[in-house]
Amino acid sequence: MKLLAIDTSGPVAGCAVMDDGKVTCLIEMNQGLTHSETIMPAVDEALSASNLTCADMDCFVSVAGPGSFTGVRLGVCAVKGLAHAVGKPCARVNALETLAMNFYGFDGLCCPILDARRGQVYCAAYDMKDGLPAEIIAPDARPLTDFMAMLPSGRRLSFVGDGVPVHGSKVKETLGNRAILAPVNLMHLRADAACVLAEARQNEWMPPHQLTPIYLRAPQAERERAAGRDHTKSLKRQREEQKAK
Amino acid sequence: MKLLAIDTSGPVAGCAVMDDGKVTCLIEMNQGLTHSETIMPAVDEALSASNLTCADMDCFVSVAGPGSFTGVRLGVCAVKGLAHAVGKPCARVNALETLAMNFYGFDGLCCPILDARRGQVYCAAYDMKDGLPAEIIAPDARPLTDFMAMLPSGRRLSFVGDGVPVHGSKVKETLGNRAILAPVNLMHLRADAACVLAEARQNEWMPPHQLTPIYLRAPQAERERAAGRDHTKSLKRQREEQKAK
Repeated sequence: MKLLAIDTSGPVAGCAVMDDGKVTCLIEMNQGLTHSETIMPAVDEALSASNLTCADMDCFVSVAGPGSFTGVRLGVCAVKGLAHAVGKPCARVNALETLAMNFYGFDGLCCPILDARRGQVYCAAYDMKDGLPAEIIAPDARPLTDFMAMLPSGRRLSFVGDGVPVHGSKVKETLGNRAILAPVNLMHLRADAACVLAEARQNEWMPPHQLTPIYLRAPQAERERAAGRDHTKSLKRQREEQKAK
Repeated sequence: MKLLAIDTSGPVAGCAVMDDGKVTCLIEMNQGLTHSETIMPAVDEALSASNLTCADMDCFVSVAGPGSFTGVRLGVCAVKGLAHAVGKPCARVNALETLAMNFYGFDGLCCPILDARRGQVYCAAYDMKDGLPAEIIAPDARPLTDFMAMLPSGRRLSFVGDGVPVHGSKVKETLGNRAILAPVNLMHLRADAACVLAEARQNEWMPPHQLTPIYLRAPQAERERAAGRDHTKSLKRQREEQKAK
């Protein structure tokens, strides 16, 4: 079975090709947020290095969020486009669950945290001991302290994701030795882990038109409209404030 | 601090650039064993994607074995050459220890096994609970059954490396539920883990001319000479046997 996964949901633009249970190519770039420029050449290269083409794929896997609104949409659209072009299905995996795959076999709970700004993290908790992630706390956007208060006592906890460099010291301060922080080599989401999840859940594959992003919060524009504010004016004000700095 | 790591010791050709504790690019290819053709373009691309050049690096990291004799030599030489050209030091990391980094925080022992052919595995065991790998069984080439007999009872064990697809069922049969096998996304060595190890051990950096491969067995040619056989004739015979198949 051949799968191609794309992740542009966070700071890393990544893609992986998995062929018959082997990762034939993985490319990850994390230098500036120009995912829109870098991801398609990376896909091209990953296929070429694997001696495969889009038409060979059995499934296109999208890391569909949570994450950056624009990044998530970009990745979802790239996967939809590729799958549609060759008439193949898509798989949708959650970024938090994919991150948890970095702690396979861990005897406690794996707690992915992504920096969601506005004082929140995208977070979830998974039991990893017996194989694929088993959801203990469902993905949501919360203040970190609220999330930590929800974690069961008496278990070891591993924290992973781009929230760790930002909030790691707060986590250690609150949870002490119960918590371990992912080292750099396990910190970020790996597109090949998305392939592994998608292959294990073929019953959830879908036609490209059904693939949608995973958003845990309404986008800023919708939040502002709901609050009776004019988003265009807010954006303009933000830009002017940035220029003034 | 900026590090570039190269690994061609096993089936995967990988390189990673780490800049100030962030993996800025990781490229891995695992399709055929043409590491000599693929690794230098990959290095070029990893640097370019990181907006860096060789001259910017503080250290060049070599995954120096154990592994394929030719692959190890190729990777070591590439690292020596790059480091020498820009007058920077090298770091030498062990492939087995780097593999163990895939199980950071695991509460038992991580047991990397690499297929060493001739009925042996390159193997070692590391305690991962408290951070970087702590050696419990030193790297060596042994029959798998001898290695498994050396493992302490009463601890969970995680097996990782290209020996897992080959010997995984034997491991489960012998050790039962105490043993877990790495999933595909954690199965192989990641060059960024080599950067993490090298950064943690700056006191072991060395000038390029001191960098040597890590071989756990004498090469086939030397073994045959020691046994009084003519290696050239053996190779010729092997080729003729392969043709005849």
